[in-house]
Amino acid sequence: MKKKNFPLAKVFSLMQSGPTVMVSTALKDKANIMTMSWHMMMEFEPPLIGIVLSEQNFSFELLKKSRQCVINIPTVELMEKVVRCGNLSGRNRDKFKALALTPLPAEKVSAPLIDECYANLECKVVDTRFVNKYNLFVVEVLKAWIAPLKEPAKTLHHLGGGEFLVGGKTVKARSKKK
Amino acid sequence: MKKKNFPLAKVFSLMQSGPTVMVSTALKDKANIMTMSWHMMMEFEPPLIGIVLSEQNFSFELLKKSRQCVINIPTVELMEKVVRCGNLSGRNRDKFKALALTPLPAEKVSAPLIDECYANLECKVVDTRFVNKYNLFVVEVLKAWIAPLKEPAKTLHHLGGGEFLVGGKTVKARSKKK
Repeated sequence: MKKKNFPLAKVFSLMQSGPTVMVSTALKDKANIMTMSWHMMMEFEPPLIGIVLSEQNFSFELLKKSRQCVINIPTVELMEKVVRCGNLSGRNRDKFKALALTPLPAEKVSAPLIDECYANLECKVVDTRFVNKYNLFVVEVLKAWIAPLKEPAKTLHHLGGGEFLVGGKTVKARSKKK
Repeated sequence: MKKKNFPLAKVFSLMQSGPTVMVSTALKDKANIMTMSWHMMMEFEPPLIGIVLSEQNFSFELLKKSRQCVINIPTVELMEKVVRCGNLSGRNRDKFKALALTPLPAEKVSAPLIDECYANLECKVVDTRFVNKYNLFVVEVLKAWIAPLKEPAKTLHHLGGGEFLVGGKTVKARSKKK
């Protein structure tokens, strides 16, 4: 998917509406992907994002050791892969192959971008003090990519049990809020 | 709005899709409301939620001192109030009156529920160690209320500039994810 640079100051607009994301990580010759819903913006610029992932996930180990990841934002066409990704472990398989997703080299980190996702945020871990108690990593977005879209992205927002709200339809308030 | 108890173990399903919320706080005879997008689930049960709010907000002061709040989840009918709420300060005005919203007594905390919001989560602050650096409070949900809905709630998901994705339409994956 052809993508261009996306301004770091606008990353909040991709993330604060709560899209379900796919986090890619890498360590040595091993790359992995996990599905994640538990994240939030913590600062506008440089963009900081808090992410919580279970310590039982293989990705937790890769993130902790490599201190890098890519937050990839999928749209509704990828829904089945998003769910399957959440149900498979990458400990003993290559999830890029298992899910037929395309890894692309990132610019600032060694974790790969997922080509099929319309936006990709290259991140480094900047604070691990809440990892032991809450599995919470604070990451800084170093570089953001976006595919030019003509309409708001049909992002996935997981309710539970494989059921998602779908982005795309927007409404705009008369009184603007920044 | 008539509401019933909502199981704490299912609170994640209300919050992880990233709804824009209205946080109510109270201290002594003063109550306030703020609009907030920066939050995430941190634990299923008891439900823990991380919330980030600017230290410039009056609500920040009330939350820090009272260590309690209610996370109220509005639907699209309240969009204009959600945006106006984000553009007004409660330091010198009563925002319930200014926005014509109805405060109701909560069961476990002194902060009021917003009657017009379809779900309300009564919360206490359980960790403040990231407040100084990140304005991040960890809160525990003590009691949750929900209005019985026939369809998925038309929640608001702020993209920026007063533009929102709207919940309601859902899709379900063939392969289930818990």
